[in-house]
Amino acid sequence: MNSWGQIFRVSIWGESHGQQVGVSIDGVPAGIALCEADFSADLDRRRAGAAGTTPRKESDLPHIVSGVYNGFTTGSPLTIEFVNENTQSGDYRNLVKHPRPSHADLVAQQKWDGYNDPRGGGHFSGRITLGLVAAGVVAKKILGNAAEFSTEITEIGGTQDKAKFAEILESARTAQDSVGGVIECRAKGITAGLGEPFFDSAESLIAHLLFSVPAVKGVEFGKGFEAARMNGSEHNDAIIDKCGTTATNNAGGIVGGITNGNEIVVRAAIKPTASIAQEQATFNFESNKVEPLVIKGRHDVCITLRAAVVVESAVAIALADLKLRA
Amino acid sequence: MNSWGQIFRVSIWGESHGQQVGVSIDGVPAGIALCEADFSADLDRRRAGAAGTTPRKESDLPHIVSGVYNGFTTGSPLTIEFVNENTQSGDYRNLVKHPRPSHADLVAQQKWDGYNDPRGGGHFSGRITLGLVAAGVVAKKILGNAAEFSTEITEIGGTQDKAKFAEILESARTAQDSVGGVIECRAKGITAGLGEPFFDSAESLIAHLLFSVPAVKGVEFGKGFEAARMNGSEHNDAIIDKCGTTATNNAGGIVGGITNGNEIVVRAAIKPTASIAQEQATFNFESNKVEPLVIKGRHDVCITLRAAVVVESAVAIALADLKLRA
Amino acid sequence: MNSWGQIFRVSIWGESHGQQVGVSIDGVPAGIALCEADFSADLDRRRAGAAGTTPRKESDLPHIVSGVYNGFTTGSPLTIEFVNENTQSGDYRNLVKHPRPSHADLVAQQKWDGYNDPRGGGHFSGRITLGLVAAGVVAKKILGNAAEFSTEITEIGGTQDKAKFAEILESARTAQDSVGGVIECRAKGITAGLGEPFFDSAESLIAHLLFSVPAVKGVEFGKGFEAARMNGSEHNDAIIDKCGTTATNNAGGIVGGITNGNEIVVRAAIKPTASIAQEQATFNFESNKVEPLVIKGRHDVCITLRAAVVVESAVAIALADLKLRA
Amino acid sequence: MNSWGQIFRVSIWGESHGQQVGVSIDGVPAGIALCEADFSADLDRRRAGAAGTTPRKESDLPHIVSGVYNGFTTGSPLTIEFVNENTQSGDYRNLVKHPRPSHADLVAQQKWDGYNDPRGGGHFSGRITLGLVAAGVVAKKILGNAAEFSTEITEIGGTQDKAKFAEILESARTAQDSVGGVIECRAKGITAGLGEPFFDSAESLIAHLLFSVPAVKGVEFGKGFEAARMNGSEHNDAIIDKCGTTATNNAGGIVGGITNGNEIVVRAAIKPTASIAQEQATFNFESNKVEPLVIKGRHDVCITLRAAVVVESAVAIALADLKLRA
Repeated sequence: MNSWGQIFRVSIWGESHGQQVGVSIDGVPAGIALCEADFSADLDRRRAGAAGTTPRKESDLPHIVSGVYNGFTTGSPLTIEFVNENTQSGDYRNLVKHPRPSHADLVAQQKWDGYNDPRGGGHFSGRITLGLVAAGVVAKKILGNAAEFSTEITEIGGTQDKAKFAEILESARTAQDSVGGVIECRAKGITAGLGEPFFDSAESLIAHLLFSVPAVKGVEFGKGFEAARMNGSEHNDAIIDKCGTTATNNAGGIVGGITNGNEIVVRAAIKPTASIAQEQATFNFESNKVEPLVIKGRHDVCITLRAAVVVESAVAIALADLKLRA
Repeated sequence: MNSWGQIFRVSIWGESHGQQVGVSIDGVPAGIALCEADFSADLDRRRAGAAGTTPRKESDLPHIVSGVYNGFTTGSPLTIEFVNENTQSGDYRNLVKHPRPSHADLVAQQKWDGYNDPRGGGHFSGRITLGLVAAGVVAKKILGNAAEFSTEITEIGGTQDKAKFAEILESARTAQDSVGGVIECRAKGITAGLGEPFFDSAESLIAHLLFSVPAVKGVEFGKGFEAARMNGSEHNDAIIDKCGTTATNNAGGIVGGITNGNEIVVRAAIKPTASIAQEQATFNFESNKVEPLVIKGRHDVCITLRAAVVVESAVAIALADLKLRA
Repeated sequence: MNSWGQIFRVSIWGESHGQQVGVSIDGVPAGIALCEADFSADLDRRRAGAAGTTPRKESDLPHIVSGVYNGFTTGSPLTIEFVNENTQSGDYRNLVKHPRPSHADLVAQQKWDGYNDPRGGGHFSGRITLGLVAAGVVAKKILGNAAEFSTEITEIGGTQDKAKFAEILESARTAQDSVGGVIECRAKGITAGLGEPFFDSAESLIAHLLFSVPAVKGVEFGKGFEAARMNGSEHNDAIIDKCGTTATNNAGGIVGGITNGNEIVVRAAIKPTASIAQEQATFNFESNKVEPLVIKGRHDVCITLRAAVVVESAVAIALADLKLRA
Repeated sequence: MNSWGQIFRVSIWGESHGQQVGVSIDGVPAGIALCEADFSADLDRRRAGAAGTTPRKESDLPHIVSGVYNGFTTGSPLTIEFVNENTQSGDYRNLVKHPRPSHADLVAQQKWDGYNDPRGGGHFSGRITLGLVAAGVVAKKILGNAAEFSTEITEIGGTQDKAKFAEILESARTAQDSVGGVIECRAKGITAGLGEPFFDSAESLIAHLLFSVPAVKGVEFGKGFEAARMNGSEHNDAIIDKCGTTATNNAGGIVGGITNGNEIVVRAAIKPTASIAQEQATFNFESNKVEPLVIKGRHDVCITLRAAVVVESAVAIALADLKLRA
């Protein structure tokens, strides 16, 4: 499914090298001030350009084509489109017969009998996340000014020492390799009571969205996997006031699947970019044997850099949907 | 929401100390041989009794009350009920005014204005997972004989050395404390092509269900968080034959959100049981101050032990839904 | 699907001659006073007994098995079960080989490869509507005291003269035949603003539910089909005050798919009961030719009589879901 | 909600006088040949121009912006946009203070606190049905060549005599009035077995979509309301062969909510166009009294004419979704 959300419903479309990628958001309350400039800050965070990101650059200007009138949302679907500009489809022709390792090339061909658009990963491209970032901007407006997101990359290439990040990226680029990382998103000022157990716990919805972001392979809340190594007496978060503030926040702001008013803490593990410039040996479906593959095209050494705002957007979308349900 | 699934739709209900817990499953194909004995093996794996589990024991006999005729599923909703037998509600009266740390007591009271059933955690009780296990049995029948699940506890109390598990459990019990753990579920023989990107990736659906299981705080696929520490050249899974078999399986059988025919590998981090027998200091809403709390009742030292089959069931349900969609 | 509703989600199960029929309702707000006696009045309206109804009588006692604590709804799924008592399955054995005209016997066999439960129509039995009536009772509580439903049979066997209804029923019974009718449901005190265009207009949701009730073959709002014969100048409802009251109510309280605060008016056409006692000629799949069929068993001469409360319940459920969404 | 469908999911957006109206369709199987010319025939049927239709004419050219590659659908969302060309927004400014009778003006203002786009009816405009017609074209391709739709206007202004239709339209136009009508859609070659009772009967899904089409106030299947006036012995459709062919087709091809392989027959009652040129007296929210209103702008004397293809599209969409579920 390319739509998600019970009330705040996000529908996306587009392919990497098609005419456009877009998003239509249903369930946006009427009366939210919104213009195209509101999307700039988050779209900039997603844009290529920094060390470690792809040389493919696009202006990524959002076009609001429905749902806003006189500067305010109308209650009707809010649709935002992004024209694809800088497509070099020639780069990708080879991958139908020689699918790239750890890419969707092969599974997409199998699943859609070869009719999928293979150019630049088609619908599997990270470019599709433009719509998610746009939806995240609206989601944050719904969550209100009290909600404060702070998202950072806590780990790259195995180290948590931020001073070494630049060095690791450069060394991966030189080696024609790629690196992964961990993104931590924190959200303060999220009202208590969001989450609809049994099946729609706050964790379930956030994780559902995060695992639809390409390259995410792990999600944890609060202490996460570390919690599995703690005793109950260490891990339990004692309540210390009538607002439900807790002395520690090992739960990451979610208990019993419901937000408890403490800071939401969630981390996503991002795998290393699958497209690497160095030669790889993988199956060639034309020759029917394992053969060397060199991937051409322009790629990110570390997609984690650009994914941070996508992770934040996913968290905001899930929380906005839960807020509108409550 | 207490229902989940697009085609294979599971609806659950019940409270820990109510009359029953139950599950109704819609979308079960007609013609699957099914009787109550089919549920025994998995229900036994979930049952209390071993060291580290609660002394509250119930027979947990499933009653099929609709959807089976002459020993086969009919295509109509399959409903299975479990009578609650061994309830000792007196144990829990105190928790309305003095909510237990890291339990849903407080958030549930806030969310439902005090109308929630607090006895034994009410609808938040792990007892609700009986229905999930029952649905998992049916899901595995839908996935067919080729699908082979193997689920184990890979870590308890911080160690992966299984020889030490018993010792750790006993020592936690003696200390009136609890421990967490990690459960790994592997599924072989899952057909390639399951998963409906963008939003319904195989990982998204599995994680959605896993994070609705009480006590799960982290989920990862394949190498998971370890992938974030690898280079692309190490992490990429080279395809080695026309079936899509890969030399390594760092992706855990899912690429681009779609199963690739290799073994599915998923791990869930289970937090230590929140109910511990030792005294804790937490807020008392009657006295309006932090005060000592002693939790009475019967509890699991390590819920991980009984959660393994629940994790496996969740994975099976997600895959069955995806199979029926494909 | 056997569940319906976005927020107020009703899941039903059961077969005519199985152990029970039941309903689980998710999304019921916490704090609604509810006990089993609350269902009596509406269940009585659905019960057999009057002239023109089946001699199969059951006590139809509702058992609340989850979701109520201390006399109030808890916010968790509300589950209500009805034990099947008076089953005479022997009556129905013949219909597998000789399916009844205008019944689901044949389509059900085809759709579920013969695995469907054929006894008494199985899951297609009108008995399944017990759950709908129970859900309707809860829906009306959600709509509040201001909402006032009045439902009547406006037509039986082609006449609108109520004085003749008894005569028509008796004459059909004597002729071993059956008759249809029209049910009109009016709801006053429904707040303006319910309905979620484009696809979830108030009319769409009400009609969706009404057409799932067995035997409904037509649904119209306000003037309905008569509106197609009016001029705009006659049909338009002039607004006469700032509350949106209209001079006429040809629209039946719904404009642009949204309730406008005027009385909701909806009618459902109920076909004559398909089970008639007189001999019919229809295809016999054993002999492979058209042969006489005599349907045994106990049937309603006019299901319209018992369907009135079901129609009202369907309308209430749709409006309650829309109210909880708004 | 502005999306509909379980598998074949249609999401629409746009306003009458906004930049565009559009539709994104998820769940379209890969490999369907599709180009923009495929939409011409049905879009032409919807276009203004004939006697009785609005003088507002637009080219209504569909732009496929995603989901097609090399002339075939890809399995990713199929998005189609229509630029709005001929907007004369000045015509509509008055309706905020003086809402038109039987239009959504007032309810939309109330529901969205005055933030709705009022120009030309905004999101309530019949123009939104362009997306529905586009989706219908794709739906018919999914139903396959065997499916044969034939849709006609069986009644206008109260007469079924087609020879008089032109006269009635002209006379309504002269009187600055409008007329309603009845549309009958028949679909041959629809496979048996479509429909998912209890709640997703074929009738429920078709009616759900039809009642989201502006101006539809009644829907009936087969004999419909006439069935309520028949005896069971007349109305029952005797099966006459092993394919399930029936001697009569009073059920309109749907029994027990499931298609039975006979022709689908459904009728929709279309109210007279609410916008009429003659003066009407209705409430003015500025002066706070009932005052004369003259509606300017360009309108259809009989929207039934252009709605026929929309009704057919709605039927096709519902059946396509059911086919993909089965």
